[in-house]
Amino acid sequence: MSVQGAMQAAWPARGGGPDVIVVGERPIPQPAAGQVLIRTHYAGVNRHDVNQRARGSGPKGSTDILGLEVSGAIAEIGADVTGLRAGDEVCALVDGGGYAQWVVADAALVMPRPAALDMREAAALPEALFTCWFNVVQLGRLQRGDWLLVHGGTSGVGSITLQVARALGAKTIATAGSPAKCEAARAFGADVAIDYRTQDFVAEVASATAGRGVDVILDMVGGAYAERNLAALAMDGRILHLASGATPVWSAPLRLIMEKRAIVTGSLLRPLDIGSKAMIAAALKTRVWPLLGTEIRPRIDSVLPLHEAGAAHARMESSEHIGKILLDCRSE
Amino acid sequence: MSVQGAMQAAWPARGGGPDVIVVGERPIPQPAAGQVLIRTHYAGVNRHDVNQRARGSGPKGSTDILGLEVSGAIAEIGADVTGLRAGDEVCALVDGGGYAQWVVADAALVMPRPAALDMREAAALPEALFTCWFNVVQLGRLQRGDWLLVHGGTSGVGSITLQVARALGAKTIATAGSPAKCEAARAFGADVAIDYRTQDFVAEVASATAGRGVDVILDMVGGAYAERNLAALAMDGRILHLASGATPVWSAPLRLIMEKRAIVTGSLLRPLDIGSKAMIAAALKTRVWPLLGTEIRPRIDSVLPLHEAGAAHARMESSEHIGKILLDCRSE
Repeated sequence: MSVQGAMQAAWPARGGGPDVIVVGERPIPQPAAGQVLIRTHYAGVNRHDVNQRARGSGPKGSTDILGLEVSGAIAEIGADVTGLRAGDEVCALVDGGGYAQWVVADAALVMPRPAALDMREAAALPEALFTCWFNVVQLGRLQRGDWLLVHGGTSGVGSITLQVARALGAKTIATAGSPAKCEAARAFGADVAIDYRTQDFVAEVASATAGRGVDVILDMVGGAYAERNLAALAMDGRILHLASGATPVWSAPLRLIMEKRAIVTGSLLRPLDIGSKAMIAAALKTRVWPLLGTEIRPRIDSVLPLHEAGAAHARMESSEHIGKILLDCRSE
Repeated sequence: MSVQGAMQAAWPARGGGPDVIVVGERPIPQPAAGQVLIRTHYAGVNRHDVNQRARGSGPKGSTDILGLEVSGAIAEIGADVTGLRAGDEVCALVDGGGYAQWVVADAALVMPRPAALDMREAAALPEALFTCWFNVVQLGRLQRGDWLLVHGGTSGVGSITLQVARALGAKTIATAGSPAKCEAARAFGADVAIDYRTQDFVAEVASATAGRGVDVILDMVGGAYAERNLAALAMDGRILHLASGATPVWSAPLRLIMEKRAIVTGSLLRPLDIGSKAMIAAALKTRVWPLLGTEIRPRIDSVLPLHEAGAAHARMESSEHIGKILLDCRSE
């Protein structure tokens, strides 16, 4: 039996502000081999979606429906899928299409809803956990006892990363943009929270680490912190960039890189090949799933109905949120 | 019995051009525990020496006598040294002091003269091999089948690196500044040699690698190639910087780093801790020493007497040399 017909979905009519988002009818997608169809309960809102909307287009070959992560119930199983059944409550990383009542997902990127989390919390996991694990653990090789600096410690990715890093035995420092956000960062597990509007994070990092610096920096700010990140880094430290930000050019004296053997790198999650994503999913299920609900719990900033996707984007762009912004896709 | 008295040595009287180098008398150094005293036969001339002379000072706590590598015969053994004997013909990485008739070396950084190489060739090994191994193999993780791009393929480091990389099963591309130097680079084992004065290395790399790019870049040019190096890089490629060069600021769009998950890094050999240097020495003795004289042989550009150290520096600064410039320290 296959689910067919039309569904509500959200996509950008063209490039522009939050008001270019259209909520309208689209055909329910069909799962290909290796995929499942999920009846979406909640979709996570990510900076990636905001950028895609601003440009008006996503990657070639992908749906123009926004959204990279969902929670929901499996509605239909494609060919060659084992270990998943219709009715399973899951969350998933998807290649677009999340802002919709139904969405297809690669079975390898579908994970069970953690027993201790509800469907809203489950929708807040995939992007943050895949991003954190790939960058901080795989590329950044964060070790027990290392110091981690997270810029933007109250974002969806930042708040989860602080908790994961702490659970892995790292010591954590977060920057945030207000006293309230610093308090939230400490609640997420930051050993030190720095208000970047009033404090010099290089000096605060030096003070917190007795002059040693941090081993790993997770950066969503972009080129603006290039030289200061190097100054805050320990010998052999790694800087992971997730976004170009407002300063898209990275620029700093080469001597600072050579003196510390700094590794300056970064990644984009969406274009990562499915094999690598499947390996991350497998690692998350083994290493992080047992900690969800106890040591790690996503924080929900707000839940808006699907037809208010534009308002959800406006809230993300205001940078007033703490934690995850979700869309409720159940009741359109 | 200990060697005492005065020796001839060369050091910069102040910062400046090649003419600031003084050749005069200094006391013969005494080996501390864990060190040996070497009667220097030949000392290698490195870009580091030229920079130290230009500044007029070296690292704090080190001798002001120039020179980071020598060949010679062990004259005296310090306390707690095993496995080395007076009379052994060796080469060594030293922490300054190479431009002299005698020099002390940490025993862990002393390696036997390879049977198939003479004393001149042995003096051309330490800096190039330590630099190549640490950067290209350890930090750069060059694998069999990888593509390596070496900027400055006819320098001391470049010419050895091409041979080592080829012996490890990598494919190699070199840039060089003239048709004669390109021919020399091919003789060192470069699969492709690019004349950077007349050719666009990004286009040539794309052509040689069928659009894939190179996995590792060894760069002595500095910031000038920042964006072009990224363009020439394969996915997950590594860029290793050895020198700031004429463009000491590295600057490129962050998006290029994230899209390729490029690793931008670099190192300085001299300040590396002795434990890490000893590990490199151990790896070189196991992995590279058996290949010396067959698959890997250093090329000597020229040999000048110690009292012409200034002329040796002038030759290095002319960039006309191909291979290693040496000082003969036997007969002052």
